[in-house]
Amino acid sequence: MNSPEHYMNIALALAEDGAAVGEVPVGVVIVKDGEIIGRGRNYVEELKDPTAHAEMVAIRDALKSVGGWRLTNCEMYVTLEPCAMCAGAIVHARLKKVYIGTADPKTGACGSVMNIPADSHLNHHPEVVTGILQEQCSSILKNFFSKLRRTK
Amino acid sequence: MNSPEHYMNIALALAEDGAAVGEVPVGVVIVKDGEIIGRGRNYVEELKDPTAHAEMVAIRDALKSVGGWRLTNCEMYVTLEPCAMCAGAIVHARLKKVYIGTADPKTGACGSVMNIPADSHLNHHPEVVTGILQEQCSSILKNFFSKLRRTK
Repeated sequence: MNSPEHYMNIALALAEDGAAVGEVPVGVVIVKDGEIIGRGRNYVEELKDPTAHAEMVAIRDALKSVGGWRLTNCEMYVTLEPCAMCAGAIVHARLKKVYIGTADPKTGACGSVMNIPADSHLNHHPEVVTGILQEQCSSILKNFFSKLRRTK
Repeated sequence: MNSPEHYMNIALALAEDGAAVGEVPVGVVIVKDGEIIGRGRNYVEELKDPTAHAEMVAIRDALKSVGGWRLTNCEMYVTLEPCAMCAGAIVHARLKKVYIGTADPKTGACGSVMNIPADSHLNHHPEVVTGILQEQCSSILKNFFSKLRRTK
């Protein structure tokens, strides 16, 4: 059994792939029974699609291999706290657990400014754990935005 | 200039198309300068994708014709109040205004159980108007679920 840090490191590598092509560096892996079945990074700029966040990309990737529309018994490892759109998608997809690298105090919807996974109106409540490789997951974003400001 | 009811009727026809193939009947059109540039209905069952809500489908359809990733100055007409995922996507896509047919008291995220378009933490606040062809937009859902219960 691999540690949460093992999978978060792979999510970080996907975030780096995004940064290399100018995407906000967020990476995601989805794991079932210890095996990675979905991978994602931001494609917002490349696809000109504001819904192409890493989580949405990874959910659709994972669904290809499960033969249905539920990711029950799957875990997501995501470098940055999901926004409202992605948190809603996580609930719809019935993910069991979400491991988050670093919180997003501005728009995070898994405990920061909203808490969609815990919302009592919804019919599914994924468990959320925050702070896996927090420093690395935060640094990759800080470096990206500071480089962006310097080049502008 | 067409009335909101004109566009909502077209959204209702898309919802009917969904019902005919077993999808929860929700329909969406996206309008720019009076012209329909995006259409959507649910594809959750057909695509086995829990993120394939009518709003997400319509946003991606509309984006094809705008040459960027913003739907600024566009209006959405949607038969049912969007969920958290779709409300988040509407904010990301920078839609100007959302006309809703009927409220969703269980999971609606545009005023019912959450209010994502009005959330002060987010950087864009689409205007929301609810109650366009309310009765028809509600009936189509009630009829679908009552038929579903009878066949089960």
